[in-house]
Amino acid sequence: MERVSVIGAGSWGTAIAFVLAENGHDCLLWTRRAEQAAEINERHTNASYLPGITLPANLKAISDLELAVDHSDIIVIAVPTKAIRSLCAEIDELAGNSKLIIHVSKGIEPDTLKRISEVIEEEMSPDKLQAIVALSGPSHAEEVVLRHPTTITAASFDQEAAEHVQDLFMNQYFRVYTNDDLIGVELGAALKNVIALGAGITDGIGYGDNAKAALITRGLAEITRLGMKMGANPLTFSGLTGLGDLIVTCTSVHSRNWKAGNLLGQGKSLDEVIAGMGMVIEGVRTTKAAHQLSVRYDVSMPLTEALYSVLFDNVPPKEAVDQLMSRMKKQEIEDIFYK
Amino acid sequence: MERVSVIGAGSWGTAIAFVLAENGHDCLLWTRRAEQAAEINERHTNASYLPGITLPANLKAISDLELAVDHSDIIVIAVPTKAIRSLCAEIDELAGNSKLIIHVSKGIEPDTLKRISEVIEEEMSPDKLQAIVALSGPSHAEEVVLRHPTTITAASFDQEAAEHVQDLFMNQYFRVYTNDDLIGVELGAALKNVIALGAGITDGIGYGDNAKAALITRGLAEITRLGMKMGANPLTFSGLTGLGDLIVTCTSVHSRNWKAGNLLGQGKSLDEVIAGMGMVIEGVRTTKAAHQLSVRYDVSMPLTEALYSVLFDNVPPKEAVDQLMSRMKKQEIEDIFYK
Repeated sequence: MERVSVIGAGSWGTAIAFVLAENGHDCLLWTRRAEQAAEINERHTNASYLPGITLPANLKAISDLELAVDHSDIIVIAVPTKAIRSLCAEIDELAGNSKLIIHVSKGIEPDTLKRISEVIEEEMSPDKLQAIVALSGPSHAEEVVLRHPTTITAASFDQEAAEHVQDLFMNQYFRVYTNDDLIGVELGAALKNVIALGAGITDGIGYGDNAKAALITRGLAEITRLGMKMGANPLTFSGLTGLGDLIVTCTSVHSRNWKAGNLLGQGKSLDEVIAGMGMVIEGVRTTKAAHQLSVRYDVSMPLTEALYSVLFDNVPPKEAVDQLMSRMKKQEIEDIFYK
Repeated sequence: MERVSVIGAGSWGTAIAFVLAENGHDCLLWTRRAEQAAEINERHTNASYLPGITLPANLKAISDLELAVDHSDIIVIAVPTKAIRSLCAEIDELAGNSKLIIHVSKGIEPDTLKRISEVIEEEMSPDKLQAIVALSGPSHAEEVVLRHPTTITAASFDQEAAEHVQDLFMNQYFRVYTNDDLIGVELGAALKNVIALGAGITDGIGYGDNAKAALITRGLAEITRLGMKMGANPLTFSGLTGLGDLIVTCTSVHSRNWKAGNLLGQGKSLDEVIAGMGMVIEGVRTTKAAHQLSVRYDVSMPLTEALYSVLFDNVPPKEAVDQLMSRMKKQEIEDIFYK
């Protein structure tokens, strides 16, 4: 049994804490809202995020960040990407000793274009940071808490830390792999949202499965090309955190990014979509970041460009997709994988 | 304008002929049934296969195979896999000159375990066979005849023949790539049906998207491993005919293989499923072939083994999937791609 603090009680943070508590660990779930902590402690539910689910009785919640940080040497960060930098600065202030940081973010920091582990490293002092592990893969929280089989990857440059995280989470329904390609795992997790947005757009236009499959195939190839230039192992993009997560995101009705794309494809403006969904659409920010990365690393990314033109240059979705589909070279392997 | 004969007037053969006729070619569509030929010629419909679709007026049908063979130097074979060997022997007898053969089969010959181009080559004399091109990719016929954007691959060892086929079919909505990896294209097209069956089974059991995504990811990796041992380019499996077609097959309600798997996952026996669907389920034969190939080429294929045990050894689907999901090594890349 180990002590673990999970920071952030959204659906995924709560599901993470659910698994840890079920595995017998002393897990503390932090939420900023005291009434949510009370609901978890008293009624063993987190109804606004995981309706209908009873949480393990040994799972405790707390709204005091200092106590949460103090409780454990292992801290899971499960807050939105944009909150991570300031949260890590706070944790660094509060921490009395060195922490193993696990993050579950699927984003890239806007403007700096940094991966999340880079952001964490910048905000924490070396003596407070034991190692960083990214936990990522095809994993709807709603299915994990029903104990449906789920596979996930624990990625770190520090193999021992990755194996530690694997041991913490592994059980009958939650299967954890390790991967030393932290760069590929973090990039794949973020960039796949660009493709999901594109898949939603083709669906919204009313094009069928043929067009969507072509777009997903070419999209995965282009994020792989970018990843390779940034130091990732191309195989990671064909693994659980790349292809696996992409399949879940592009084909599931749960996916926010797909939904946003779908509305755009139907002719709604980006502002209308954002207003209507009332929440952050990570894929929109990530499309901007991917566009900037493609310029910085000089990688051709036609799908990203097409999406960027729809989101930020008011190009009609149908025009962008038609142009994307008709833009092609003669040779499949050459065009998809090397151009 | 060229003369092309399409042999087989099922939904895909008809869609192929639709594209060729729309491109202005003199296309003759052969069907064994005279009344179906009459329907196509007189009413410009093929209602039992493509309901609601009006076929191009310049598309002619015929039920005389000799006339069909005689009409063109380019022949598209669009009959079920099991009929291809005898059909090619017949074409060889009837042909007065050398033919370019295009096939659209997504199978492997049972028992011999041969790819379809190998079967064609065996049945045709060298002086009657100019070249073989496989046309494959994510392409529901129903969407092609609605002119929804579709991408597809023309694969051949003969680059000139592949480019010829590309020129024949290419238009605004039907985008054709070439690929010289005929082995990878034929294997991917067939073996992806094994994975579709598996995806259907997990859905039928009631497991969610997480499990399905894991299964698809690992499945694609294992057919890639087999393909590499058989001489294919691994990248082909991440292209349109591999990943692309797999996405369409695993996520579409049109897919027969997914449907069959779904029924198996719900507890129906293989005999009940076959009887209930009233048609061939290519993935069932292909699972047997894939199992035999994994033995012959000494490749570990856990998903194929699990499916084989369900189909032919009466192992309960849930038991097989649970075992598959819990059978894992420590390292993702190593386990998925190299084991």
